[in-house]
This record gives sequence, C-alpha cells and structure tokens, in this order.
Amino acid sequence: MLFAKPLAELISQLERLPGVGPKSAQRLAFHVLRMPNDDVRRLSTALTHARDSLRFCDVCQNVSELELCELCQDPSRNTHVICVVAEPRDVAAIERIKEFKGRYHVLHGLLSPMDGVGPENLKVRELLERLREPVEEVIVATNPTIEGDTTALYLAKLIRPLDVKVTRLAHGMPVGGELDYADSATLLSALEYRREL
Amino acid sequence: MLFAKPLAELISQLERLPGVGPKSAQRLAFHVLRMPNDDVRRLSTALTHARDSLRFCDVCQNVSELELCELCQDPSRNTHVICVVAEPRDVAAIERIKEFKGRYHVLHGLLSPMDGVGPENLKVRELLERLREPVEEVIVATNPTIEGDTTALYLAKLIRPLDVKVTRLAHGMPVGGELDYADSATLLSALEYRREL
Repeated sequence: MLFAKPLAELISQLERLPGVGPKSAQRLAFHVLRMPNDDVRRLSTALTHARDSLRFCDVCQNVSELELCELCQDPSRNTHVICVVAEPRDVAAIERIKEFKGRYHVLHGLLSPMDGVGPENLKVRELLERLREPVEEVIVATNPTIEGDTTALYLAKLIRPLDVKVTRLAHGMPVGGELDYADSATLLSALEYRREL
Repeated sequence: MLFAKPLAELISQLERLPGVGPKSAQRLAFHVLRMPNDDVRRLSTALTHARDSLRFCDVCQNVSELELCELCQDPSRNTHVICVVAEPRDVAAIERIKEFKGRYHVLHGLLSPMDGVGPENLKVRELLERLREPVEEVIVATNPTIEGDTTALYLAKLIRPLDVKVTRLAHGMPVGGELDYADSATLLSALEYRREL
C-alpha cells in the first residue's frame, strides 16, 4: 500500500479529470489534505451543486439554473439576432466584450464527420425551431477551424432558404485559434466585420 | 452575468487549487457538468472523506487513516533504520522501489530560512523522540536542493551526537540518463562520489 485508502481514492478520482495526470492528481490530493476543512467542503458542494442544479435553457441551450436562462429572459435583448456558438464558454467569451445585444444559441459541439458527430448530435433542430419566429440574422460564431467552418457552411445552407441572413465572425481571428482564448479587441473586430455567408 | 451562479461558484472554487488557472478551472467546470452524476458524487465524496478521515501517524507522521499507520504497524519492518523524507509522496516514491524495509519519518517540509521555515515548523521534535529507542541509522532522503541539503546537514548535526549513523541518498547520474544532458552539478557529484568497480 503506497497511500492510505481515502487518499488513494481521491487521487484516482482526480486522475479522471481532463488534463490531470497521475502526478498532478497526487499533488492536488496532498493539497486537499492541507486545505482548511471549510474550503474542501465548499469545493465538494460546488461540484455536486453545479452538476445537480444546472440544466440547458429550453430556448438557447446555454447552461442555466432555470428552464429559461437569464439571457433569454432579458427583455432588453434583441430577439431578431441569434448568435450561434459551439459551447457555453463561447457565450461567456462574447458577453465579455459587452457589444452583442442579441440572443445566443449553443450547439454543444461542432460537426465532425470524422468523429461521427452529425447535425443530429448538435442542437440544430432546436435552432431551426427558433427560426419559426421572426429572425433577421443568424451570426455563426464558431471557431475558425475545419469543424467550425464545416458547421458554419452547413448552417448557412440550412438557414438561407428560410429568408434569414446568415453571417459569420470576420477572420480577424487568428486562423486555427480558439474563440475562448481570443482577446476582447480581436473578438470585437471579428464581430464588427462579420460577413454574409 | 457570464455564467449561471452554481457554475461560477464551481469555477471559483476550482481556481483556488494549485496549478489551476482561470482557463483550466472553466474547462474542468464544464467537464463536471457533462460527467455522469455518479462520478461527480464520487469525486465530491472522495474530497471530504480524504480530508476528514486522514490524519498524521503518531509515530512517522505519514498520512494515515489510523493513529498508527500501516507501515508503522507492520512487524516485518526494521525499526532500527529510519528513512527521513520531506513529504508523504516521497514515502510512496521509495516504497515503489520495494527495496527499503525500515521505517519512515515525514518532516512535512524542508528547512527554508528565506521562507521562515525553521525546525519548529517541521516534525523534527517527533523524530528526536523516536531516537530514544535504539536506532542504528537515519537515512536522510531529502531532495538534492538547497533546502534538502540544508535540512540534511541540520539533522546530521543534531543526530550524530546521539551515536546514530546518519547517511544520505547518493547523488549522481540518473540511471539511463545521458552524460551529455546531465547538469554540471550532477556530473560533479557523480565524479566526486565515484565508486571502485
């Protein structure tokens, strides 16, 4: 026995997290043993509470505590423009620049035929549903990667016949970069120079 | 609001862990939202359980579920040789080589006057206590760093008068390493401590 059982169990649970190897799991576990009891309890509760209390917004599919997320409930936001993103963290990235005042739609992934991810695995049906209401523009804010480009073209083909303008974030973004990592200035100009697809 | 409250709370708790920046905290948090409920619960419980059920062994100060850890309880281990290490993870490292059959003593740190860590902050008093029983050898297995060296010299000075042999892990080339890549300090001590073949 190398470690006492509760410690070994903690290490093995931490190891299952993405980006946490055996060494960092060990380091984190020993850190936990030294953390104030209250802090450990706060972390432990935050984990289960987040997992239990969060769901996807019925409309935009963003992570939310409520059936309808705060952004979808906000009457000051323009319902005629929908910004489509791959992940909830991309909503946060765009919100951070405080420029976009429309609504969002989170796909929860990108098309990737190589990995077997088709439109039926994304929240595409839910997006089309929303287009029954009058919408002027759909801004596709997917990453400028192969999957992001594929998804954008797919959505453009699907949505254009509905007489809705489909635009995409300008390539002010570094090609191959990730939205989540872009600085606000880059993201701002990418939004400003969005092009029609 | 960028994230729903329980999500923001989870991110902020994860950020407090060592080596977890804002970006990785976000990534981990979103991963948690997608984890099977049981897995989240297992991780959450492992955290509090480890924190609550683990203590330091009364004798060797290693992390343990019991007052006396399994290694100290093991009658097959030689009580006359004590291997002194800085951290519990070092015990695991030495146990892995399955060669040492003595007992351990965990200091929980190394002397570091610059950071205000003196002997009174380490489990030195507890080590001296153990030397009242007959002990033949204390092997100081601290890292070959300034703090490790300082601690080793300090302990040697303290223990030698008690008529106990004090030794230290050999410095030298890592097995399988290449001379060409070894740093000068390592190479120097490898040369200094050369053995007759």
